Amino acid sequence: MNPTHPNLEIGMLLYPGLTLLDLIGPQTVFSWFANTHLVWKTMDPVISDTGIGILPTRTFETCPSKLDVLFVPGGFGQQQLMDDAEVRTFLADRAAQSRYVTSVCSGSLLLGAAGLLNGYKATSHWATRDALGAFGAEPVDARVVVDRNRITGGGVTAGIDFGLVLLAKLRGDEAAKLTQLAMEYDPAPPFLSGSPKTADSSTIRQAMEFMVAHAEKQAGRRQSEVAS
Amino acid sequence: MNPTHPNLEIGMLLYPGLTLLDLIGPQTVFSWFANTHLVWKTMDPVISDTGIGILPTRTFETCPSKLDVLFVPGGFGQQQLMDDAEVRTFLADRAAQSRYVTSVCSGSLLLGAAGLLNGYKATSHWATRDALGAFGAEPVDARVVVDRNRITGGGVTAGIDFGLVLLAKLRGDEAAKLTQLAMEYDPAPPFLSGSPKTADSSTIRQAMEFMVAHAEKQAGRRQSEVAS
Repeated sequence: MNPTHPNLEIGMLLYPGLTLLDLIGPQTVFSWFANTHLVWKTMDPVISDTGIGILPTRTFETCPSKLDVLFVPGGFGQQQLMDDAEVRTFLADRAAQSRYVTSVCSGSLLLGAAGLLNGYKATSHWATRDALGAFGAEPVDARVVVDRNRITGGGVTAGIDFGLVLLAKLRGDEAAKLTQLAMEYDPAPPFLSGSPKTADSSTIRQAMEFMVAHAEKQAGRRQSEVAS
Repeated sequence: MNPTHPNLEIGMLLYPGLTLLDLIGPQTVFSWFANTHLVWKTMDPVISDTGIGILPTRTFETCPSKLDVLFVPGGFGQQQLMDDAEVRTFLADRAAQSRYVTSVCSGSLLLGAAGLLNGYKATSHWATRDALGAFGAEPVDARVVVDRNRITGGGVTAGIDFGLVLLAKLRGDEAAKLTQLAMEYDPAPPFLSGSPKTADSSTIRQAMEFMVAHAEKQAGRRQSEVAS
């Protein structure tokens, strides 16, 4: 750690229906070493996929142009953004000027849609990982995947591991270690059910059903907002 | 899992300077089975200890009176609330009507200050755990501590383990397992540094220094707000 290092500049995309934990995991990891900018089209509150309202700190126009890290979270709202030209233009523009271009969960599909994973190894939530192939990416079954300056994390809670890996690259192992300790990241999952490799087949089926139902609910919510 | 179960009613305290990950971990765990109410004195945005603005969904007056779970997160802002009569009265009132009275991180000190842990085993962030003794609680070095209807979690990321343990109690193991899978909670911490038991002594010292500095910064911020 070098105490004279300036704060990192980290641009984190917000959008309606994001999974807030995808973002708050790494944002908490980075926070002692960074200015974390929460970026959306407007400064109006953005509602997460579990109904939490969060305030952007920057718009696409006011987000710093040169970033240490561009970050995209996943969430059920990701699907409604895949054809959004404004979002794709913002991501492609900042990616060209960022040291690292990154995502957690289904956020990698948004990076893919913006043309930013073509020819790169990448990961995503286990349920959406194979869809990366459609964007010229090579899906990898790993919690954190580093390929040149693209770093992608798996589903939701993988954002904490992702954040610590990236912080170690940017500010050294000691910075990541003290952050891990301050966050008491010494996990003790109560079940062996965090991956399709270990979960029961009935649990996998039920999780898929819940995820499809929530994706449809999110799509319906967007639809009715567009109509109103 | 019983699909006819009504949604759980979960009241989660917000306050200036809370550690948002303490709350978003369990809120994400509960979300598919619960109405999670984010409660503060007013409906104005609350700013977390890393500068994130979040919108309350209820006030102390409009929060449901009977809750399945009363939940208090930790954060550097906790210290400024220890003598707040309005907060302590709210916690004591809802605790008397809740099935479970719970916290993550230094949130347990607020439960203690409200007289809710007297005679109970409890835990907290490793750096604040011993302070529980002042409130008649018995500090326990564990990630999640269950004593009758008091359930307390360790620091920050322990909220995910805490949430899954509590969800299993309320809605059964299968509900917790599918949630763990959907959140891909199959952790892979990059360092063996998540607990004072495993971290280097230099890392512990540096983490303590960072935490003290941020607690003072938070206290200064509150002070200047009160003055203005």
